[in-house]
Amino acid sequence: MLAQLAPTAVTGSQALAFGDDMAPLPSGDSASILAWTTDVLMEGVDFRTLEAGWEAVGRKAMLVNLSDCAAMGGRPVGSLLALTLPRTAAGSDVLKLVRGAAEAGAAHGCPIVGGDTNSWEGGLVVAVTVAARQEAGGRWLARSAAKNGDRVLVSGPLGGSILGRHLEPRPRIELGVALSRLDGVHAAIDISDGLLIDLDRICESSGCGAILDERELQAVIHADAQRLSRSDGRPALDHALADGEDFELLVTADTAEVSRLVELGMQPIGVMQPERGLFLRGAGGGVRGLQAHGWEHPCG
Amino acid sequence: MLAQLAPTAVTGSQALAFGDDMAPLPSGDSASILAWTTDVLMEGVDFRTLEAGWEAVGRKAMLVNLSDCAAMGGRPVGSLLALTLPRTAAGSDVLKLVRGAAEAGAAHGCPIVGGDTNSWEGGLVVAVTVAARQEAGGRWLARSAAKNGDRVLVSGPLGGSILGRHLEPRPRIELGVALSRLDGVHAAIDISDGLLIDLDRICESSGCGAILDERELQAVIHADAQRLSRSDGRPALDHALADGEDFELLVTADTAEVSRLVELGMQPIGVMQPERGLFLRGAGGGVRGLQAHGWEHPCG
Repeated sequence: MLAQLAPTAVTGSQALAFGDDMAPLPSGDSASILAWTTDVLMEGVDFRTLEAGWEAVGRKAMLVNLSDCAAMGGRPVGSLLALTLPRTAAGSDVLKLVRGAAEAGAAHGCPIVGGDTNSWEGGLVVAVTVAARQEAGGRWLARSAAKNGDRVLVSGPLGGSILGRHLEPRPRIELGVALSRLDGVHAAIDISDGLLIDLDRICESSGCGAILDERELQAVIHADAQRLSRSDGRPALDHALADGEDFELLVTADTAEVSRLVELGMQPIGVMQPERGLFLRGAGGGVRGLQAHGWEHPCG
Repeated sequence: MLAQLAPTAVTGSQALAFGDDMAPLPSGDSASILAWTTDVLMEGVDFRTLEAGWEAVGRKAMLVNLSDCAAMGGRPVGSLLALTLPRTAAGSDVLKLVRGAAEAGAAHGCPIVGGDTNSWEGGLVVAVTVAARQEAGGRWLARSAAKNGDRVLVSGPLGGSILGRHLEPRPRIELGVALSRLDGVHAAIDISDGLLIDLDRICESSGCGAILDERELQAVIHADAQRLSRSDGRPALDHALADGEDFELLVTADTAEVSRLVELGMQPIGVMQPERGLFLRGAGGGVRGLQAHGWEHPCG
């Protein structure tokens, strides 16, 4: 919907596509180094307050936004918290939520500096807006900057976050800032909806495709994906490819940059190519097509 | 709730209380000239989509935020739109909402540069975040800056907005910017919840009280308040004092500044005093206490 409004916003010499992890914050001068993002979490879609607890809901609402900052290579500077509360919410529970969000923000240098509180007959809706700035020597990492021949790398193991990690995103801010200073790093995104869906977003905005390497992928299957696989019978690799809410960074980079990225803890899992679509190169060398099927917001 | 987190945020040499119309946007340097605000509007509380129409809902969501900019003396620079949509919402309706918000923003130099779109089983929630900057020679107009002996002035007639104006806020941005350049203007707020409630907010944050002048108030009773009075039998003055959603600016200023403010179209309606509380000086000169009763979000 929103993408129909404005295809591209320009900040300084860098164009950021509408619909990236953050949008440039127009500051009146031409070389804005600020960007902002807003993410809304809803009862029954992104969390169940009764199961997760109010504090965890507040924490998650802040952390998913900070993960967007990380994906852009930005350093978060502050946030706004907008609450739409069920009328039945107890003040003490709401304070827990606010504390959860505030502490998660403060731990990453991102205080809550304002917001809005409302109540209504409906369910809980938590909207967090975060602003971030470029660090000296850094630049924004856009989704649209992937190049043919780039290696695809990921910052950590994937899959099975539903077993608990989905409530505790670890925003990779320091890593994002480090990446924003490396010329060889091109596109970046955080894995919120699943590796395939989010990689497809990079491909879509960059006008290319990707081949994932099954052998390399074996090294980034999370223990939670293995555990889930044992209980639901689905291959652990499927969980790594399609589960969401890992909040690891997915980047594409020049091959010359790969060794430095490996030193930073990133793992290569594939390569960008001119042909559109997502593919998997099996252990035997054969290539098959993949659907960008992925996680559709279960909650727990 | 939020106010318990952080009593005061500091921007440059100016302290802005948490809970003002906007919050300073921390930009990493000490002299930030950016501030931001977020306001959430909910189905059944701030609007009824079926009655108002989707476009009007989008417009209102943007305009109430722009009114907050005006109250701070800021020039809006851009916005984020976060939508939480009922699953039953038609794409064409959602586009109307987005268009309403985008056009209202564009008309005030405030493009939508990003946002978030979600759907759920609940009702429509529209959250807009707006950033604004100080104009050259201007400063933020805080609620907390009222001084004893200040005159209280309002930018236009009040009351009866429920007859239709509540859906069409006119954010007083140019006036706010002009006010932000006048040293004699101290506190400012936009009248969203009603003259008395919003004046009480100035009093509360500034540690003083106010006496309104009944004769002066007669000049700021809106024709809608008169009309409403004829149908509900409540005095038109009550509507002017207690109805909400006029979105006019309410300011306090040094008496030496009053003639300039009158030239700008503002009308004096009272005076600030050291004694706490709100009072009304009747036409005969007698003074009586007022309750900060006011508008509790009816909708239409």
